[in-house]
Amino acid sequence: MMDFLQQSFTVNFQYGVYFTEHLFNTENTVFSDFLAQGYTQEVKRKILFVIDQEVATYHPDLISQIDEYFSVFNQVQLVLEKVIIPGGEIVKNDEKYYREVIEVINRNGIDRHSYVAAIGGGSVLDMVGYASAISHRGIKHIRIPATVLSQNDSGVGVKNGINYLGKKNFLGTFVPPTAVFNDFQFLTTLSDRHWRSGISEAIKVSLIRDASFFEWLEQNAQALVQRDKKAMQYLIKRCAELHLQHIASGDPFEKGSSRPLDFGHWSAHKLEQITNFEVFHGEAVAIGIALDTVYSQLTGLLTEEHANRVIQLLLNIGLPITHSMAIIQDENSPILLGLQEFREHLGGQLTIMLLKDIGKGEEVHEMDHDIIKEAAKRLSGSGF
Amino acid sequence: MMDFLQQSFTVNFQYGVYFTEHLFNTENTVFSDFLAQGYTQEVKRKILFVIDQEVATYHPDLISQIDEYFSVFNQVQLVLEKVIIPGGEIVKNDEKYYREVIEVINRNGIDRHSYVAAIGGGSVLDMVGYASAISHRGIKHIRIPATVLSQNDSGVGVKNGINYLGKKNFLGTFVPPTAVFNDFQFLTTLSDRHWRSGISEAIKVSLIRDASFFEWLEQNAQALVQRDKKAMQYLIKRCAELHLQHIASGDPFEKGSSRPLDFGHWSAHKLEQITNFEVFHGEAVAIGIALDTVYSQLTGLLTEEHANRVIQLLLNIGLPITHSMAIIQDENSPILLGLQEFREHLGGQLTIMLLKDIGKGEEVHEMDHDIIKEAAKRLSGSGF
Repeated sequence: MMDFLQQSFTVNFQYGVYFTEHLFNTENTVFSDFLAQGYTQEVKRKILFVIDQEVATYHPDLISQIDEYFSVFNQVQLVLEKVIIPGGEIVKNDEKYYREVIEVINRNGIDRHSYVAAIGGGSVLDMVGYASAISHRGIKHIRIPATVLSQNDSGVGVKNGINYLGKKNFLGTFVPPTAVFNDFQFLTTLSDRHWRSGISEAIKVSLIRDASFFEWLEQNAQALVQRDKKAMQYLIKRCAELHLQHIASGDPFEKGSSRPLDFGHWSAHKLEQITNFEVFHGEAVAIGIALDTVYSQLTGLLTEEHANRVIQLLLNIGLPITHSMAIIQDENSPILLGLQEFREHLGGQLTIMLLKDIGKGEEVHEMDHDIIKEAAKRLSGSGF
Repeated sequence: MMDFLQQSFTVNFQYGVYFTEHLFNTENTVFSDFLAQGYTQEVKRKILFVIDQEVATYHPDLISQIDEYFSVFNQVQLVLEKVIIPGGEIVKNDEKYYREVIEVINRNGIDRHSYVAAIGGGSVLDMVGYASAISHRGIKHIRIPATVLSQNDSGVGVKNGINYLGKKNFLGTFVPPTAVFNDFQFLTTLSDRHWRSGISEAIKVSLIRDASFFEWLEQNAQALVQRDKKAMQYLIKRCAELHLQHIASGDPFEKGSSRPLDFGHWSAHKLEQITNFEVFHGEAVAIGIALDTVYSQLTGLLTEEHANRVIQLLLNIGLPITHSMAIIQDENSPILLGLQEFREHLGGQLTIMLLKDIGKGEEVHEMDHDIIKEAAKRLSGSGF
């Protein structure tokens, strides 16, 4: 006896990404207007803030601004308790932080119609997004990214996660945020190193999706390095837009093995890990982009002229293109393990994005270790 | 300066629910045919089994049958290690079990194209579904429910979860399974108490969605109690079908506050908890159905004749309609707290499904404590 029922349904996911300044100035109603949208008298909603320690340090008035803002706009009840957690990978590595967020959610009776807002860098957003996604099977999560990298890349996407059993993002979900608020003011206090490293994801997305954005980056490299506000605002919005388009047009919850936005990332993830995150994610991505660009050239996929333009742009932004730990001595060199781990995390067949033109990628299913070695060697030499 | 990008995308979710017998008999190709669907030479896929201790005890040949099955059908590589975990609420209460599943997933390199199959009652499926949903942001999860309750209700749905901070399903996600296999043979070894208690969810779904199914249940009550195979097979398939239709037609990931399938559940969840799960879920649901049915009658929503038919069917199946802990002495009686906790878990406005007819529910947003008290009193008396 065999019998069968087929289940099939579709779910629509929507969220807005807002670009603003001075989000918690009471004259700025972007945030309160968003919260007012869902207002009904019957449903009592709350909002809990989780804040990156680094952001709280550089913006010492932030908490009092939030308190004042919600004394004026009170469609949603502010939870007075704020959770302050460290930024960076530690907050994803040590379980105590995600447990703390879940405990505060419970203690304050945050339900599925209430909000957990996270203000911080990508690691804080990843962790708080995960804690929100699994509490009560999903509390509404608002992201307020505070770095270039999170405003133009991870903060606008649908992934969250924490590290577990020594593996990056071993636990996590695909759950879109309820809204994203990119406040330019948070970027003004970033170090030059953080400011620049976030630009590598913009270079990456331009290389695989948009040649004219790449040309814009070439033309505006100096303005970006000099921290020109208008240039960075344009970069963030365009980069966020390209990421959003990619998610909506493709495979948002990554059911397949193709992962075009991970161009340059197989080596980057490994490099971050083996340098104990002393190399920032954006820097590691720059090195990863350089490696896969030269690899593309050496295999004949990309012209030398195009490869040189990529490397030159990375250098003009002040991004690294090589690292002592990225050199390959032999088959046991740690960076090569990154290829295997990348396949394991995605699952299925190894699928790597390479470049065939500025603005155009091409996927391959294997990489030649000798050619990777040669590419790494060229980048470490005086060739560039 | 304010600027905005709108993200919107749709994701389709599909899974099959198979009804079969002797799933791991090598002459039954239902399971292997399913696994063969996704076969490509390039992608090495694995399957890990997690098994409810009670199922393993009553079916001592199960593990060797699985091993033999995969020695014949080998499109997917069987992980030889099996995880055996206790059934019942303990497996959702104690974190060590979900951590164990995640560690075995990691140790065996189970990736997003591989499968974790769970064989067991609802608690085991909930916990393993959760562990699978968060590992690598979602490993394919196959459900093989082994009780009446899980075959006709939770096993075919999209929820998973574990208990945390003393609260039922505090952590969990909405993630559909990859497939569900209902094997009737697992039901043959159930105790009469387990067999009958699973029928309450069928009564529930008939009451809110399908009067003719309710009439079928009335007509077949004796056959069901006498463990007639054909009757139970029909019940399970029809009940699963009604659940699947409800999920697909409504709000699959429960973004709103309406929860029609939770008819009778506000008191049932609380009763399970305050009796330390000595009252089975299905029994608690029977008591909850009785309570909300009499409440519907007392408020004039439902006729006495219809209310009596509901109570009579519960009694004919051998299900309880009252419990000493369900009696309400005063406002502090624990069962009344269930109303508040139900609202908190759903979030938003309290929304309770009552009955206006056999096969037709009606939602209300408050319940009168005195009338609940009177309903509980009637059920505990000799009135029925």
